[in-house]
Amino acid sequence: MIRFECDYGEGAAQPVLDLLQQTNLEQTPGYGVDDYCEQARALIRRLCDAPDADVHFFVGATQANFTVIDAALKPWQGVLCADSGHIHVHETGAVEATGHKCLPLPGVQGKITAGQIREAVAEHWASDSHEHEVQPGMVYLSNPTEDGTLYSKEELTDISAACYELGLPLFVDGARMAYGLASPANDLSLEDYAALCDVFYLGGTKCGALFGEALVITNEELKQDFRYAIKQHGGMLAKGRLLGLQFLALLQDGLYTRLAAAADEKALAIRRAFEDKGCRMLYDSPTNQQFPVLPNAWYDRLSERYATTLMGRPDDGHTAVRFCTSWATRDEDVAALLADIAAL
Amino acid sequence: MIRFECDYGEGAAQPVLDLLQQTNLEQTPGYGVDDYCEQARALIRRLCDAPDADVHFFVGATQANFTVIDAALKPWQGVLCADSGHIHVHETGAVEATGHKCLPLPGVQGKITAGQIREAVAEHWASDSHEHEVQPGMVYLSNPTEDGTLYSKEELTDISAACYELGLPLFVDGARMAYGLASPANDLSLEDYAALCDVFYLGGTKCGALFGEALVITNEELKQDFRYAIKQHGGMLAKGRLLGLQFLALLQDGLYTRLAAAADEKALAIRRAFEDKGCRMLYDSPTNQQFPVLPNAWYDRLSERYATTLMGRPDDGHTAVRFCTSWATRDEDVAALLADIAAL
Amino acid sequence: MIRFECDYGEGAAQPVLDLLQQTNLEQTPGYGVDDYCEQARALIRRLCDAPDADVHFFVGATQANFTVIDAALKPWQGVLCADSGHIHVHETGAVEATGHKCLPLPGVQGKITAGQIREAVAEHWASDSHEHEVQPGMVYLSNPTEDGTLYSKEELTDISAACYELGLPLFVDGARMAYGLASPANDLSLEDYAALCDVFYLGGTKCGALFGEALVITNEELKQDFRYAIKQHGGMLAKGRLLGLQFLALLQDGLYTRLAAAADEKALAIRRAFEDKGCRMLYDSPTNQQFPVLPNAWYDRLSERYATTLMGRPDDGHTAVRFCTSWATRDEDVAALLADIAAL
Amino acid sequence: MIRFECDYGEGAAQPVLDLLQQTNLEQTPGYGVDDYCEQARALIRRLCDAPDADVHFFVGATQANFTVIDAALKPWQGVLCADSGHIHVHETGAVEATGHKCLPLPGVQGKITAGQIREAVAEHWASDSHEHEVQPGMVYLSNPTEDGTLYSKEELTDISAACYELGLPLFVDGARMAYGLASPANDLSLEDYAALCDVFYLGGTKCGALFGEALVITNEELKQDFRYAIKQHGGMLAKGRLLGLQFLALLQDGLYTRLAAAADEKALAIRRAFEDKGCRMLYDSPTNQQFPVLPNAWYDRLSERYATTLMGRPDDGHTAVRFCTSWATRDEDVAALLADIAAL
Repeated sequence: MIRFECDYGEGAAQPVLDLLQQTNLEQTPGYGVDDYCEQARALIRRLCDAPDADVHFFVGATQANFTVIDAALKPWQGVLCADSGHIHVHETGAVEATGHKCLPLPGVQGKITAGQIREAVAEHWASDSHEHEVQPGMVYLSNPTEDGTLYSKEELTDISAACYELGLPLFVDGARMAYGLASPANDLSLEDYAALCDVFYLGGTKCGALFGEALVITNEELKQDFRYAIKQHGGMLAKGRLLGLQFLALLQDGLYTRLAAAADEKALAIRRAFEDKGCRMLYDSPTNQQFPVLPNAWYDRLSERYATTLMGRPDDGHTAVRFCTSWATRDEDVAALLADIAAL
Repeated sequence: MIRFECDYGEGAAQPVLDLLQQTNLEQTPGYGVDDYCEQARALIRRLCDAPDADVHFFVGATQANFTVIDAALKPWQGVLCADSGHIHVHETGAVEATGHKCLPLPGVQGKITAGQIREAVAEHWASDSHEHEVQPGMVYLSNPTEDGTLYSKEELTDISAACYELGLPLFVDGARMAYGLASPANDLSLEDYAALCDVFYLGGTKCGALFGEALVITNEELKQDFRYAIKQHGGMLAKGRLLGLQFLALLQDGLYTRLAAAADEKALAIRRAFEDKGCRMLYDSPTNQQFPVLPNAWYDRLSERYATTLMGRPDDGHTAVRFCTSWATRDEDVAALLADIAAL
Repeated sequence: MIRFECDYGEGAAQPVLDLLQQTNLEQTPGYGVDDYCEQARALIRRLCDAPDADVHFFVGATQANFTVIDAALKPWQGVLCADSGHIHVHETGAVEATGHKCLPLPGVQGKITAGQIREAVAEHWASDSHEHEVQPGMVYLSNPTEDGTLYSKEELTDISAACYELGLPLFVDGARMAYGLASPANDLSLEDYAALCDVFYLGGTKCGALFGEALVITNEELKQDFRYAIKQHGGMLAKGRLLGLQFLALLQDGLYTRLAAAADEKALAIRRAFEDKGCRMLYDSPTNQQFPVLPNAWYDRLSERYATTLMGRPDDGHTAVRFCTSWATRDEDVAALLADIAAL
Repeated sequence: MIRFECDYGEGAAQPVLDLLQQTNLEQTPGYGVDDYCEQARALIRRLCDAPDADVHFFVGATQANFTVIDAALKPWQGVLCADSGHIHVHETGAVEATGHKCLPLPGVQGKITAGQIREAVAEHWASDSHEHEVQPGMVYLSNPTEDGTLYSKEELTDISAACYELGLPLFVDGARMAYGLASPANDLSLEDYAALCDVFYLGGTKCGALFGEALVITNEELKQDFRYAIKQHGGMLAKGRLLGLQFLALLQDGLYTRLAAAADEKALAIRRAFEDKGCRMLYDSPTNQQFPVLPNAWYDRLSERYATTLMGRPDDGHTAVRFCTSWATRDEDVAALLADIAAL
């Protein structure tokens, strides 16, 4: 079975492991205040052109999401997100467990707009009984989205402007950041994220690390005492350097986007192959996740050899699936798949 | 201004006040363990034909709702409800503040069905990633609903059966219970509620009391230590007898439903008057809330004299409003309104 | 049985009931935005000489306590309090249920000092691992305390200064405020409370009302959106005017402190009677709660006729009890008790 | 600087890294359902002689602690622990953030007793106002304790019996389990833990792994749906196999206790060296943490070359410190320290 069902099926890019091995017996202080973490922080600030940003490392994305949201919101505030947002549908109510409601907006291809945000906030304040409703207090979005799609610089700039005017911090979940940055369709740089968002992260888990997300906070208010929030929510890794080291290995010479560029290229080749066979794509994704809608017979055929994620059955005759590439996807596996698609 | 905008605009039915006055200087133990509370509990058990039920009193409905839901759910469970459910849209995220997600189902006229519940639960367990999603752990509905509509005995029996099979406690918010029981369209008795629900309440606040909701628990597991839950959530009234006394005054000779029957009758007269003028009703309500859709000019005319609740603008030419009667609605006010409607 | 075991055993002072009766059928908007609430707010602001203060009404003290604390604290902050503080020992973990830890300081006669607060905060920040500990974020105290004792103006001023320097809001639970204000030992006025505290309340439940606490917020940051907090925590009474009306009745002509002065006087007479018999007092209380330590035989004798609260057994031969007077305590009951004490 | 200040200053034992490297490019399903996790689970069940136990892996101990406690308790329950318990003093209120109060009992050398537990529970239920207090719902202890001391089999058996009788699940935090198991003073086996506890864990982070704790649940009720709890609290590692692999490397041939035995031996040599110089030990620890009380001058001298943890200043002339050895402590560093102690 060749696996295309997710982008976290393997371990880590070799330079990551090498650096962990090489530093293994060094003694450092715990909890992320070691030199390696400091170096990684400095590097990320430089890449973001955000010298005053705070950088914190998390083991995983769910943890990062609810910690940020809980730290940013007043108890009676909720977080606006797409109805397909990971925090709303795929984290076992982790945000609600911290006391806050997700306020889903109907997404198109996983994306929401500045207009939707403005409207939701305006509706809230216009309501006679707004004190009986959850107050929108923050905007969460993912880029790339759950559907593999990308916000353009213009879209994110509009959202950022809306958030700024409305007094809502903007939080971007970048669990697949590398695949976004490396996509041919992308026009957003890390500098843009730092300029447009109050807080965002560069995903490591799905982008070449064993695990880890690097959170960048530019909002002054959110910076304060944030390490307490990390610790309280179980996110402070004793051997914090493991996170700093991995991001150093990924970011210091561009490995992060090089790995992702190759993965995106493979994903887009798979997409083209399906499109050449007349398949419709469920979402218009320019990144490492592709969502072809297949005749059932084709799905059955491919399933004999390839593991994918089932997305649903749009009609009786078709099956929508997800093919995911990653930094670890092998050329020969893609070649085999392309050949098998062509032969359908 | 004559007020039809809610059913909690006045104080309490006179016998309620009289009993409070009459017992005012008696000394009783606090926190609801006094004799009056015990008498009220016994009376409610008798009316429900539920000798083993536990009965607790709350000051208000929001408090009752989140206390029950928090006590019943495991941390990773959420509560299925209509998308118009009070807990979902009108309690400032009180349920989420206890850590639990509302899982809204699309309602029709404020109602959900056994089929929807079965489907939602089946979908959850069928998901490959169900552990990444909130587990449905309870069903919440209101009767009468937010829209004034009523579940029939058959509908509630079906829902109850589904809940039983699925292992989900069924919780009925009866903030307007009296108006339901007294409606000509109703076929549910208190005995039915006790037999079909795991927990439900008889609203007092909107039904003749100064304040108060009487919660009936038939589910053994939920009974245990429930007073801790009340206290922890700020719901344990020091002078608990005030709640027992009010329900005694309302329930001991049928005042509760007599008051509501008069209110329903007035509401239905208002409904007929609007229908006679050709107005469509937003919801098909047989209880004390009526939702006519008015030509804007008519709305403006009536607004000069009558306070109502604005429900929205279905189209450019129309305004939907709510007229609410209550135990305190005066005959002359209804007569005036009927005349004014006729004159439109 | 004559009851001295608590100060919430009866209903309400007659003028309170009268005003409720007199306004019973008036129609007012709900949720505390009616004219009566506004009048009560204006009156309280005037009494506190705090024209910019926000005033909110709660049904009960536990609810007020956790709502204020939850609204004021960041998620990783806790609340400093005496180890006998009501929030720490007598509210079923209501504060913890909102996610915050009580940080108890060893009290003397129920009181803590500015020095203890400074030391606790200094220790926190001096710790190498302070991010692994709960950050002190607020100070809670009761006046009168749980033990009936009073903070002097000097003591409260010192605490206020410490809180101000340390950036901690100061919250005073005034559930028995009236008995404090009326005590011969008291030197604190409502103006002082408003000047020295960020937030405090005037208790109604134990001081002549059926129920209710009037919360005064002077801290700008805490004012913002506070009504959401009330609603979310189930504290927004539908018929909010019931609270405004009661405080109007109590405060508009000094009834509040007149009732309390009589109660304090009775309590001090009881204290003197016990002291005349050579009894030690567990706490040096100048308010409506008195805590004599009785030879067991005396305790048994008095228990035949009087209900009290058992406080513990300091040694094999003695029993400590609480005698509580209230606005409702009858002269003849006190006379009977004094005679019985004299006859011991 | 030679570091003895903690047991998480280095990376991982080499066989752990080797196994991660060796399996790095294998494709496995995520979230801990892969074969390596299954193998590690089977191995742990075998070592515990607990074929029906559930085994789950966590990245860190704080996360494991609050996830277990939140899953086990009813909302109004708290967790009994030593006043030095890690959850009470060193996790930024993580347990309270899930809504539950820590109920500290005064520990002796970091330990509590069955008697204390029985007494606390008896006191709770004997209280007239127990519903106003947090209900004890669970017992948490660490072994080795925070002070390096060990519960004997007899002590743990007594506590287990008390918990069983009282209906309280017993939870043992084994963050330093290996150093306990390997201590010459220990008489508890993994089989004993499995037989005596409802839930416990074998720490990896401090015992040779990069990170990770292996949680063993024997209590049937706690087993149910536990993976939801892990996910909701951010504890479900995407590449779950990293945890399974590390425990396989540590446990499959006894490396876990071999590493710890060497560390304990080094720690005890350090203890003997200090005792030979007449130093008192703050705690009577037979494990990898040692707490000598040093004359200040000695402390200053040793601090030039060795990093330790400052524990406090028992008097003006003395300083108490912690020396920690670990699986990674080098023989030559210990030899240097022993020589320097001898030369004091």
